[in-house]
Amino acid sequence: MTDDRYRGGAAYVRGRFVPVAEAAISPLDWGFTRSDVVYDVVHVFAGGFFRLSDHLDRFERSMLGRRLKPSETRNEMETILHRCVALAGLDDAYVAMATLRGLPKVAGSRRPEDCENHFLAYAIPWVDVITKDIQERGAHLWISSRPRVPDASVDPTIKNYQWSDLTSGLFEAHDNGFDTAILCDDSGLVTEGPGFNIFVVKDGKVLTPGHGSLQGITRRTVLELCEQLKLDAAIGPIPRELLEQADEIFLSTTAGGVMPVSRINTTILGNDRPGPISLRIKAAYWKLHREGVHRTEVIRAI
Amino acid sequence: MTDDRYRGGAAYVRGRFVPVAEAAISPLDWGFTRSDVVYDVVHVFAGGFFRLSDHLDRFERSMLGRRLKPSETRNEMETILHRCVALAGLDDAYVAMATLRGLPKVAGSRRPEDCENHFLAYAIPWVDVITKDIQERGAHLWISSRPRVPDASVDPTIKNYQWSDLTSGLFEAHDNGFDTAILCDDSGLVTEGPGFNIFVVKDGKVLTPGHGSLQGITRRTVLELCEQLKLDAAIGPIPRELLEQADEIFLSTTAGGVMPVSRINTTILGNDRPGPISLRIKAAYWKLHREGVHRTEVIRAI
Repeated sequence: MTDDRYRGGAAYVRGRFVPVAEAAISPLDWGFTRSDVVYDVVHVFAGGFFRLSDHLDRFERSMLGRRLKPSETRNEMETILHRCVALAGLDDAYVAMATLRGLPKVAGSRRPEDCENHFLAYAIPWVDVITKDIQERGAHLWISSRPRVPDASVDPTIKNYQWSDLTSGLFEAHDNGFDTAILCDDSGLVTEGPGFNIFVVKDGKVLTPGHGSLQGITRRTVLELCEQLKLDAAIGPIPRELLEQADEIFLSTTAGGVMPVSRINTTILGNDRPGPISLRIKAAYWKLHREGVHRTEVIRAI
Repeated sequence: MTDDRYRGGAAYVRGRFVPVAEAAISPLDWGFTRSDVVYDVVHVFAGGFFRLSDHLDRFERSMLGRRLKPSETRNEMETILHRCVALAGLDDAYVAMATLRGLPKVAGSRRPEDCENHFLAYAIPWVDVITKDIQERGAHLWISSRPRVPDASVDPTIKNYQWSDLTSGLFEAHDNGFDTAILCDDSGLVTEGPGFNIFVVKDGKVLTPGHGSLQGITRRTVLELCEQLKLDAAIGPIPRELLEQADEIFLSTTAGGVMPVSRINTTILGNDRPGPISLRIKAAYWKLHREGVHRTEVIRAI
């Protein structure tokens, strides 16, 4: 039975479960003032988490990479995620987890080593990175002039909130009447966009960048599906020019799945509609969900 | 008269003044989840703000640069800063202000344009970026192997919380037994460190980098002081090698002022103590404060 207070979502912060609207962090927390925080997002489809352990694996790697260690164990985190979804009474959900640097235990310290790290999580109703109607017609993608922060400065495989370059790209896309943006690195190789990986289809071959981007869980699922569908797929460098010459483009993300693109800058792809290979992979992705592959049933008894 | 609840500091969040320990933001706020936020820090010395209007000018430029517009006017922000200090009953204070992207007014939107931006501020007891005892002996500075995020990706003159590269540098410095770190860009030019600008003194000439760093207000004060002290000072590129050949190095920041360095990696500067020119500038910096130059008296009547 669902408590009405949790209708908008449920959160876990500082050891307590609260309605998501009441979840709070301090504006002095270094997770905010230094963006010293890692996060992950897993989704729940029809009452089951999708690839939960893969998300937890990546989250653990992210924490390790930034030397963040909260008091909760992995098992406890998993239980917390279940409980957030159960409290919110959601069948389809966007479930986020984050570990923040926190505040120094030693007053006045400016050393991250002195901070008390803490874990938070929340489950809210499903969110699409790109709205469903745009997914239907195919997204209009803008190639941003803002170079993606280099891997050497900020490791993009550690999932982080430092989105300034991505947000700049979004503004540029919207200013030009596009739905979202893709960023290249400073040598013109395609990286990722605000919240998604990118795939290019050219001459029947499916390609996704190997650097400058998160190793997305949906990206991994797509690569596995390509193998099952006998599609030739590879990870490798994608020059910006290839985007404009692509037969098809699609984006992948936990919060939206496989999202076809129909325009890239002024270039119209195919018939200005999602391409056939993109749609095949998209269909296969949701079929996995309906068949319960990679599924962890949400535990409702709390 | 000071209210005891505000002893640890006073904050303004969402239109209300609260004890700083009660200040809260949502972990769903894009100011956190996208680090889509700009900030500034001004200090109060012996009951007066130092260069308050310069900090507000820069803060306004930062907000404009990221298209952030809270409901408070500049005059209201100024009044809020005064009130935070007054409530906290502080004579020496670290006073921070930030404008956050907020949350979308349109449910489910992923567009920053749809968000309701909001302003927050707080005054807490004075914080030194480098502790006073380390300032006395001279800081031990580590040249980080982590390249600073390039200006083209994230504009460092817009004061932001995206500190991942700086935090990586700090960890590296601490691992090697150093106090703090300085980062170079990918071509080996010196930029800035976690919360400070850098100055190099070589053959009587004072140099500070022109790119890859915040245009610090303390940095500006130092440049003005150099003119008054008839010291030859310039803004320009500083190759990493010059750091190790420097006669003196010092750091500048609002939260600490002018902070001499006595070691750079394995190189010991001068007599392993703050250098004479650094100390002259440091003394002149605090003399300005004692003389009430650039001072705005904190309004205590609330």
